[in-house]
Amino acid sequence: MPQVAAAAVQPAAKPQLRPSAAFAVTIRFQIRTAPGMLGRLTTAIGAAGGDISEITLVEETRQFCVRDIVVDCRDGGHQRQLVQQLRSGLDGITVLGVRDNTFALHHGGKLVTAGRKPLRSPVDLAMAYTPGVGRVCLAIGADKALSHRLTIRRNTVAVVSDGTAILGLGDISPEAAMPVMEGKAQLFKEFGGVDAFPLCIDTKDPGEIIALVRRIAPTFGGINLEDISAPRCFEIEDALQDLGIPVFHDDQHGTAIVMNAALVNALRLVRKRMEDIKVVVCGVGAAGTACSKIMMAAGVRNIIGCDRSGAIWRGRRENMNGMKQWYAEHTNPDGVRGPVSEAIAGADLFVGLSAPGMLTVEDIARMARDPIVFAMSNPVPEIMPEVAGPHVAIMATGRSDYPNQINNVLAFPGIFRGALDVGASRITLNMKLAASRAIAGLVSAERLDREYIVPSPFDRAVAPAVAAAVAAQAVADGVARPELTRALEYERISW
Amino acid sequence: MPQVAAAAVQPAAKPQLRPSAAFAVTIRFQIRTAPGMLGRLTTAIGAAGGDISEITLVEETRQFCVRDIVVDCRDGGHQRQLVQQLRSGLDGITVLGVRDNTFALHHGGKLVTAGRKPLRSPVDLAMAYTPGVGRVCLAIGADKALSHRLTIRRNTVAVVSDGTAILGLGDISPEAAMPVMEGKAQLFKEFGGVDAFPLCIDTKDPGEIIALVRRIAPTFGGINLEDISAPRCFEIEDALQDLGIPVFHDDQHGTAIVMNAALVNALRLVRKRMEDIKVVVCGVGAAGTACSKIMMAAGVRNIIGCDRSGAIWRGRRENMNGMKQWYAEHTNPDGVRGPVSEAIAGADLFVGLSAPGMLTVEDIARMARDPIVFAMSNPVPEIMPEVAGPHVAIMATGRSDYPNQINNVLAFPGIFRGALDVGASRITLNMKLAASRAIAGLVSAERLDREYIVPSPFDRAVAPAVAAAVAAQAVADGVARPELTRALEYERISW
Repeated sequence: MPQVAAAAVQPAAKPQLRPSAAFAVTIRFQIRTAPGMLGRLTTAIGAAGGDISEITLVEETRQFCVRDIVVDCRDGGHQRQLVQQLRSGLDGITVLGVRDNTFALHHGGKLVTAGRKPLRSPVDLAMAYTPGVGRVCLAIGADKALSHRLTIRRNTVAVVSDGTAILGLGDISPEAAMPVMEGKAQLFKEFGGVDAFPLCIDTKDPGEIIALVRRIAPTFGGINLEDISAPRCFEIEDALQDLGIPVFHDDQHGTAIVMNAALVNALRLVRKRMEDIKVVVCGVGAAGTACSKIMMAAGVRNIIGCDRSGAIWRGRRENMNGMKQWYAEHTNPDGVRGPVSEAIAGADLFVGLSAPGMLTVEDIARMARDPIVFAMSNPVPEIMPEVAGPHVAIMATGRSDYPNQINNVLAFPGIFRGALDVGASRITLNMKLAASRAIAGLVSAERLDREYIVPSPFDRAVAPAVAAAVAAQAVADGVARPELTRALEYERISW
Repeated sequence: MPQVAAAAVQPAAKPQLRPSAAFAVTIRFQIRTAPGMLGRLTTAIGAAGGDISEITLVEETRQFCVRDIVVDCRDGGHQRQLVQQLRSGLDGITVLGVRDNTFALHHGGKLVTAGRKPLRSPVDLAMAYTPGVGRVCLAIGADKALSHRLTIRRNTVAVVSDGTAILGLGDISPEAAMPVMEGKAQLFKEFGGVDAFPLCIDTKDPGEIIALVRRIAPTFGGINLEDISAPRCFEIEDALQDLGIPVFHDDQHGTAIVMNAALVNALRLVRKRMEDIKVVVCGVGAAGTACSKIMMAAGVRNIIGCDRSGAIWRGRRENMNGMKQWYAEHTNPDGVRGPVSEAIAGADLFVGLSAPGMLTVEDIARMARDPIVFAMSNPVPEIMPEVAGPHVAIMATGRSDYPNQINNVLAFPGIFRGALDVGASRITLNMKLAASRAIAGLVSAERLDREYIVPSPFDRAVAPAVAAAVAAQAVADGVARPELTRALEYERISW
């Protein structure tokens, strides 16, 4: 792997990011007609550190041609530098324009709404709108449960955020959270067939958020809470469990479910058992806590949570809160103290949900044989795969541009798909474990490899498998409501 | 017109409703193969009062064929009666099943969400989701106005209702309001290209509704308030005018804009002037008040508002509220008192936004020459066109199954289209009048007729014309924000 080689060359330097589609630009060139011109241009782009992904011909005359070339860059500075280099010093080649592909993709937003069926005639209008619609309204007015059949509640989830914990970017406002929530809604539809709509709300008060979600509940079949900072996210999710529709904080449970699936398969590779491993969880926010809880439910006994003050142990006084108190009481059976670099001695698994640079090669060297590192801080992991690669048995991150991506998209579309399919009133712990097992089970023994411990996010088999497991478990747990989903009598009126 | 003939036969009886698509059923028949069978069946359906709209062949063998026949009925009772008649007594014909088309259309809801562009590869994901999306989030975090370009705010409107004034059905719960709001959202998209999403909210407290709309505003480019009962709708709409995005209560202004357009054209036909007519507005709720205000802005001087207690006059004490106080102070210059039947003497126009049966043929007989009746109560008008038809010069209703439908869909898609196109911060009275003029102007002098005073709701020229007029007026009124909508610099980075 090229990145491992790069890391070997400069292990201590700031990790050299690879060019990525996230920083792709489309550059429009006018190129004089002459032999070898495209070769000169592509060579110049390569020399400037750009990765070419696409070349298209826009226009051609006898004197020149116009081409759009998509070039992946490393970051914003690299984009500017590369374009500057190409603007000057290439005889016969002119830059006509530059577009940032990521921003262009976001122009006008990423999500649309549409009628399920067209409204083309007065007949359509008389059924979908007045006067016909009034009949459906009256039926629901008489029996509200019908709203789960006859309205978008049947298949629609709200993606609710207050913008306080967006990716690794922190509290950047509800407006700024929208692109993430739109993307999430898109993923719901693309992978789970679930209609989803983002709601970024302008309050940080947990009581107000709880009240707001209760108020909008008649519109939705489920609520996906997203990127709400800890500890408020716990309070909000807990308070809404009686809403009658699933309320699921994906940053906690989605991450935990996929991480646990990855762990199941990683342990198959290194031949260790949940019961025997020592785990260091670095970052005890929403996701870290959920990861710890699902691992414990899956059998892990020895977990040590770490924050900036180091290991959390029973009796620690500094820098505590309710969540850390839970850690102090339920984890770290050996009462380990001290910084991550000490807590990690002999650990089999590092779970990072904290910040870049929180794990070093020296730390990994202190871990047990065949160390497993899940460095899930986003967008920059606790340690870059290029750096950790040579020193670990198995490495996973949250990024789409490296192997073993712990990507929530493996979980949430199938979980809500399954929940909606059986009219589940909530998502139980058993349903989360069932989802985790379903994801792990999709990696066959033949395909299982240190670079393939979870399915690809683009594996279309994942969501249906997760949905089936979740739906079956909802029935087993008694939270399914078949009366909301069984064959509809009005479809076959037996007058 | 057949309905006029029917009315002439039984003018005093309960109006005989015509079969409508709103009560269509699809009946699946197994029909023995023999000559004349389909003729017998269709004759039987006609004899039972059903109107056949479609016949399709599902299956055919040597012994029998299976056909689906769509039959419009008059109401729910007629549906049942018709099916019962067809189940018995037709030799060689068996009813295999019956589907209520309106309910079937609503199964699973009428609205879907979808990504604007597909998410098919890791490259798509790296731009639309992590890590690329973080760049867009940071840009919006630094300049929130960018959310109007880079998120769905650019083109998305919330359709917000508390379910308290649904069609003519009253307060039937937010769940029961959903089919109407979904239909509304569908119309926004179909006619205005505006993405819209319904939000039916579980509170009736104006303060809570105002707070909720403020909280969700970062998600939307506009707010369409819908079916919120008076007088709360006034308080809510007024309080939200500073939100920075258009907040528009469609029941008031949409109805008023289209009613006023219809009036402009009706007056062309009967050769009267706004300044000279006497108007009785029956029902002084949200829509009635807005109709009165827009007519006054368009030049009408003599309006008399009526409620169940009769005309509202300056000094009236019984059954008053803030809205009626406004009427008492701003209308009825002659101080007319008494019931509708007296107030209507010499009136040129009756505007009904009240309840079925509020206008009689006797009332119409007391109106001025060439009386105009806009009976807009939904779904059943103040007087049925079959009944009023022979006695009026021009008749309009809110129904899609009669001529001259005063249908809000002629206004709201174009109004929000125009407002979003120029980044309008609000909808001014001038913008509403501009929309009204644009709608009226779409009926050419050649086409203008007593049965064609407003364009068809399916006339695709309406929304663009309204949008252009509204956008131009927003610029003239200084509420447009070109900085939100002008060509985007990131599309052409000039490094």
